[in-house]
Amino acid sequence: MLCIGLDSDIQKIPKHLLDYNDPVLEFNKQIIEATYDLCVAVKPNIAFYESMGIAGWNSLSKTMEIIPEDIFTIADAKRGDIGNTSLMYAKTFFDVFDFDAVTVAPYMGYDSVEPFLRYEKKWTILLALTSNPGAADFQMLDSNGQKIFEHVIRTSSAWASAGNLMYVIGATKYSMLSEIRKLIPDHFLLVPGVGAQGGSVAGVCRFGMNKDCGLLINASRSILYASSEKDFAIRAREEAMKLVKEMKPFF
Amino acid sequence: MLCIGLDSDIQKIPKHLLDYNDPVLEFNKQIIEATYDLCVAVKPNIAFYESMGIAGWNSLSKTMEIIPEDIFTIADAKRGDIGNTSLMYAKTFFDVFDFDAVTVAPYMGYDSVEPFLRYEKKWTILLALTSNPGAADFQMLDSNGQKIFEHVIRTSSAWASAGNLMYVIGATKYSMLSEIRKLIPDHFLLVPGVGAQGGSVAGVCRFGMNKDCGLLINASRSILYASSEKDFAIRAREEAMKLVKEMKPFF
Repeated sequence: MLCIGLDSDIQKIPKHLLDYNDPVLEFNKQIIEATYDLCVAVKPNIAFYESMGIAGWNSLSKTMEIIPEDIFTIADAKRGDIGNTSLMYAKTFFDVFDFDAVTVAPYMGYDSVEPFLRYEKKWTILLALTSNPGAADFQMLDSNGQKIFEHVIRTSSAWASAGNLMYVIGATKYSMLSEIRKLIPDHFLLVPGVGAQGGSVAGVCRFGMNKDCGLLINASRSILYASSEKDFAIRAREEAMKLVKEMKPFF
Repeated sequence: MLCIGLDSDIQKIPKHLLDYNDPVLEFNKQIIEATYDLCVAVKPNIAFYESMGIAGWNSLSKTMEIIPEDIFTIADAKRGDIGNTSLMYAKTFFDVFDFDAVTVAPYMGYDSVEPFLRYEKKWTILLALTSNPGAADFQMLDSNGQKIFEHVIRTSSAWASAGNLMYVIGATKYSMLSEIRKLIPDHFLLVPGVGAQGGSVAGVCRFGMNKDCGLLINASRSILYASSEKDFAIRAREEAMKLVKEMKPFF
């Protein structure tokens, strides 16, 4: 259930890769080759590509071509706009790039999410409870006995089935996972925050698994930047293997 | 106080422009030339460019080059992610593209917004109350006697001054503008929803203006697609002029 977040930052990748024509692509290629048998999904965070302008979109496009067919691909884009505009974002990630899934922000409500849900055989992954400190600012506000993130889950779970809707639930809040599982027993959860952000795999598995597993546990920086030297891919594999071993007792 | 939204959709622009090497750029060029003396800001919605892949980013980049210096530029991107990732989005729009402002989604809280606020002489425009039907789903939930969008405004207005933070307040909710002005008397408001979405300029001005004007009223589709023929730029100017005339009595 490991998802590897390709938050590939040209400032952080090993310096010897800067000699390549497309350093980020080469970095991604070596990371993918070293870890693809350990993960079920990869998740490029679009910000890192976008921030390099056109070169970044080229790196992203070429990265998509080298990801093995059986790996689930997630565009971590956190998009969301009024309906006709969200449709453009859905086109970007589902048609132009052919991602299997895209992360979407819920703040603008139903018509901002629905264009993504129109795509059959694609997945919308809605932000519910995120892994960052700022999650406390608005997601945790109480409204009529429920937190805002619970309203997001409860309301949006009526918009689509567990067959094309998932949720982002930060690993740093795994104590809340059993409560969340009461609301959505069947949906898959994309769980960031393991690794660099401090969440525990065991905690997430204990409280978050369902009968189909129901989890994609993401790690990005702890794997990508395990080493800044030429052994970075070997070290990335070791870090991924550690997480897989932590997952093993739950299968 | 007119802002023109460059939601330039290759499916909707006049067909004769498709003969140009970069049809969207040519469309934007003619729209800008026909309207720049009537508006104070232009706001490309990034979704429309992103959905065309690399060609779209090229169109956006070239569009930025032809916008006159004294026009305020807004990247309508609605981005937001954990801190280190939001910083990448801030770099994209403030450094790579040199926009004056970018729209940001508030759901992930302080650390998702702060990287944008770090840029001095740039503006962060936070979504508060949007103009779409889905605004009712979560923004209007009550928490402790205040709507969620009011919490967003109240909390975030402590993060930065009115000198580098604005808010998106949909024109379709202008009856709420006077309440919002009690919370933030000094901040500029970016008001979408006039035109195709049905909001009224007079209503927005009556309830939303402050001593510095304090409003950027945006129209996109009603101006861009006033005609689908060769007269599109002339008709766009006429539509822009109508809005400017509606604004006149308030100055």
